Amino acid sequence: MTPLWQREPVGVVGLGLIGGSLGLDLMAAGAHVRALVHRPATAERARERGLASVVSTDPAVLAGCGLVLLALPLDRLLEPEPALLAALPAAAVITDVGSVKGPVLRRWGQLLAANGVGPEASRFVASHPMAGTARAGVEAGERGLFRGRPWVATPEADTDPAALEAVRELAEALGARWLCCDAEAHDRAVALISHLPVLVGAALLQAADAGGGEAGLVRALASSGFADTTRVGGGNPELGMLMARANREALLEALDHYQHSLAGLEAMVRQEDWSGLEQSLALSHQLRPDFL
Amino acid sequence: MTPLWQREPVGVVGLGLIGGSLGLDLMAAGAHVRALVHRPATAERARERGLASVVSTDPAVLAGCGLVLLALPLDRLLEPEPALLAALPAAAVITDVGSVKGPVLRRWGQLLAANGVGPEASRFVASHPMAGTARAGVEAGERGLFRGRPWVATPEADTDPAALEAVRELAEALGARWLCCDAEAHDRAVALISHLPVLVGAALLQAADAGGGEAGLVRALASSGFADTTRVGGGNPELGMLMARANREALLEALDHYQHSLAGLEAMVRQEDWSGLEQSLALSHQLRPDFL
Repeated sequence: MTPLWQREPVGVVGLGLIGGSLGLDLMAAGAHVRALVHRPATAERARERGLASVVSTDPAVLAGCGLVLLALPLDRLLEPEPALLAALPAAAVITDVGSVKGPVLRRWGQLLAANGVGPEASRFVASHPMAGTARAGVEAGERGLFRGRPWVATPEADTDPAALEAVRELAEALGARWLCCDAEAHDRAVALISHLPVLVGAALLQAADAGGGEAGLVRALASSGFADTTRVGGGNPELGMLMARANREALLEALDHYQHSLAGLEAMVRQEDWSGLEQSLALSHQLRPDFL
Repeated sequence: MTPLWQREPVGVVGLGLIGGSLGLDLMAAGAHVRALVHRPATAERARERGLASVVSTDPAVLAGCGLVLLALPLDRLLEPEPALLAALPAAAVITDVGSVKGPVLRRWGQLLAANGVGPEASRFVASHPMAGTARAGVEAGERGLFRGRPWVATPEADTDPAALEAVRELAEALGARWLCCDAEAHDRAVALISHLPVLVGAALLQAADAGGGEAGLVRALASSGFADTTRVGGGNPELGMLMARANREALLEALDHYQHSLAGLEAMVRQEDWSGLEQSLALSHQLRPDFL
């Protein structure tokens, strides 16, 4: 059967990096894309860039959409505007693109159950296309952002299989690698590989600043290795905070694992156990290709 | 006056990444380069690649050199072979390229003072061209490796100013940015910006492995951010161990600074101090461009 995104209009809420990229790829694939944005200036620029077939600041633009993608920042996703909720078509499949899944499922489960209008909770599919660049805003969207990248869905026991399938078809049409897991496993994994590196790199920058003594020297000698290690740690502070807040439990657990590993390495340096240190560094060296 | 490296033959001991790159750039600049390597197969390949004017496994190849660059790994630099010491011309300026300077100065001060033959200790100039790629060995050397990169010298009170000047002229001829500081300040700086990132990244890889639960999921979701943060931590284990061993005191001090910074960030997550966390991440965000 023809996929839902080809049969019915697709709604995109928010046209930042993720929403704009979704719009561009869906337009290129021949979908009819109806986008909702907050500010009139954004709407105008989005029209110029061709990010959607129709762009509006009026939630009514979503009327008639068979599938709606919520491409909002985490804070706005967790506290959506009532007008948005009211405008979601009752029959639509809804998915989000948030980087933390447990809180999104709990919040949207409540919202859709409490509302009595709008789609049923079972047609809400929590998902996370894991693609990104350093850019943000209406200029950031680009073609092919999802190609070859993981797109993780975290269905629950009562998730409508047809809704899940509709999101999978869209993700795969955009070239993403489709994965399903439970929300807790997802959140634990992203704490380790996305959120922990933010704290690790941020602390490294602060240590280099605090420990430098002759501050100019430390800065003059920093190389590409330091730049790489601190790239995500020196990223957008608000984004980093929002992810930590939404994924606090898993992040604290990841920090425990990390501090245990670091303490082990430090003890070897302190005790001058050089063969132990080399073995431990060899373990890290062996692990890394698995994560690429 | 014509720089020493143009007037007299230049010796290069070791033709790995640094030595081979030195050889290629010096050959291109018209120097007469006399290289000493350990293995006959390396010598043959180095000749094929044109890394030096003369390549030999016999230390006598260094006879007549006015300036000798010791491009050896840290362990061999700290325990040089007696035959190498005996072959260093008495009048030559000697410099090394080691990544830690205090131990090199102490060791070579002893060696040259004790020897009674070879160059005077005052003509030993400890230096550190801060350039690198992931490659190693006789195939690794490349043109232009030092262009725009820092080349740090750590002269002592009794260092011969003419010897220092001879090394500066060579470094600048290769396009490096010349810097002088004391050895302790250098070692403290590289502990923070080169050696600490190795432990930080290595610990992150081990934490992701240990905390993953469903191991395949963590690996499938790891993105370019995780890859960047762990690049140096997943590097050559022997090199990482040698640097930690040679720079142990400064590395432990750097670790103290780091653990203090990380504990501060963790406390904010634990106490749900989200505005504090955002401010702290904003500090890291502001610091990073200074280190690029």
